[in-house]
Amino acid sequence: MSDIISSGSNPRIRKLIELQKKGKLRRETGLFVIEGTRLCADTPAQYIKEVYATENRIRNASDKEKKLFQEHPLTVVTEEVMAKAADTATPQGVLCLARMPVYSREMLLGTGDALPLLLILEDIQDPGNLGTIFRTAEAAGATGILMSRGTVDLFNPKVVRSTMSAVFRMPFYVSSDLCAETAALREKGIRSYAAHLGGKRAYDALPLTQGCAFLIGNEGKGLSEKLTAEADEKIIIPMAGGAESLNAAMAAGILLFEAARQRRTEQL
Amino acid sequence: MSDIISSGSNPRIRKLIELQKKGKLRRETGLFVIEGTRLCADTPAQYIKEVYATENRIRNASDKEKKLFQEHPLTVVTEEVMAKAADTATPQGVLCLARMPVYSREMLLGTGDALPLLLILEDIQDPGNLGTIFRTAEAAGATGILMSRGTVDLFNPKVVRSTMSAVFRMPFYVSSDLCAETAALREKGIRSYAAHLGGKRAYDALPLTQGCAFLIGNEGKGLSEKLTAEADEKIIIPMAGGAESLNAAMAAGILLFEAARQRRTEQL
Repeated sequence: MSDIISSGSNPRIRKLIELQKKGKLRRETGLFVIEGTRLCADTPAQYIKEVYATENRIRNASDKEKKLFQEHPLTVVTEEVMAKAADTATPQGVLCLARMPVYSREMLLGTGDALPLLLILEDIQDPGNLGTIFRTAEAAGATGILMSRGTVDLFNPKVVRSTMSAVFRMPFYVSSDLCAETAALREKGIRSYAAHLGGKRAYDALPLTQGCAFLIGNEGKGLSEKLTAEADEKIIIPMAGGAESLNAAMAAGILLFEAARQRRTEQL
Repeated sequence: MSDIISSGSNPRIRKLIELQKKGKLRRETGLFVIEGTRLCADTPAQYIKEVYATENRIRNASDKEKKLFQEHPLTVVTEEVMAKAADTATPQGVLCLARMPVYSREMLLGTGDALPLLLILEDIQDPGNLGTIFRTAEAAGATGILMSRGTVDLFNPKVVRSTMSAVFRMPFYVSSDLCAETAALREKGIRSYAAHLGGKRAYDALPLTQGCAFLIGNEGKGLSEKLTAEADEKIIIPMAGGAESLNAAMAAGILLFEAARQRRTEQL
């Protein structure tokens, strides 16, 4: 075990702090920080570059954490340094410097063997929403997520935490032209459905056992007219009472789980 | 129009500030604060006690806001006072002192004419989750929400905002004994389903066109063994990939919208 880092101005600690705060630095380096016992232990080994932990955390390590500490370069830091490097108010004493997963546009658009079930996100702004969308999409069996450049940074610490490690398991691609991606999907026979308050057909009346993609818009403004026009169909989630809309992550989850339900039912 | 309040130590302003912060004071008085142009304009008139607005807000009032300002006691406050009284970082210049809606246990448990579709929430802690659950439940056509005393306060400003006014339209009841409520529902022929990772039957295989209730547990701990045992059946939302669980609000939304889908389909 190496010496203990006890200064927040240590260059490696300062880099961690900057990576937590600056999306630009994350994009330039392809690195980001994950923290907490659960997230660190659940991260696939190939994405971990360095591990930082407090003495207390190392003493009380779970089996999964022991493996993490043994298999990767481990740096011991004081509680004070951990508090500075961590994004959470009550850090759990372990964080990792991680490499971003990278997927090609072709992989996201390609049909491959799997039956595509895609999300296309336009300018989602709330970190909790984006993280929840990733977590939910994985659980529903989605095959990938396309995001506009205006979407909140997936590697923002708040987003990463709310993905519950789905950030490492759900293929994604950030695009500067979602209209072009939607058109490319159409050419491959993948139908795109825009969740839109002006939609006619209800989401559960769609044939979702075929390859399909759902377009989800910004929390306040919804989908842009331009991207909506590119979709094969505007659809609606019927709502009761005085409700005017659903939370963006909730809408995505309801659509994806209806596709999962139809696909499971078809297999029976 | 009355004089302008320009001091944050004005007793009425201090009361607003305390009501934003203290759940106990909210419970004792039956009052809470709502803020923002949209929320204030969407609040049913019978729940509004007093309105507070800045001069700028009054000058730029929408038609809905003009009605709000005319029909209720209006107090003008300076931008500085508004910033102190508001819970949000960038207040929109209007807030209301509101009365809490009150529903009886009998109303929540009663079947009445409507086909019951209930949620039973055990110790939900995240304000955004509780608010999203109310918003989503209304959209799905739920008839009511039962909550444990350990649930985050529904009238906490963060919860109120994320309900998007559903706090005024979705009947609810806070109970000190959810096991007793679940047993009472059984006696009325309302089946209760516990969303549980140990469940066997998939949620979409249930007959949800009958009166039913879904039990949703705490974000970290899930449902207690005791309450789970009181439910008629443990059920599961099938998950793909490495996903281990869903966000509590998302699970509630997927279950409720499946019930809504089945009920709509049956009507066709």
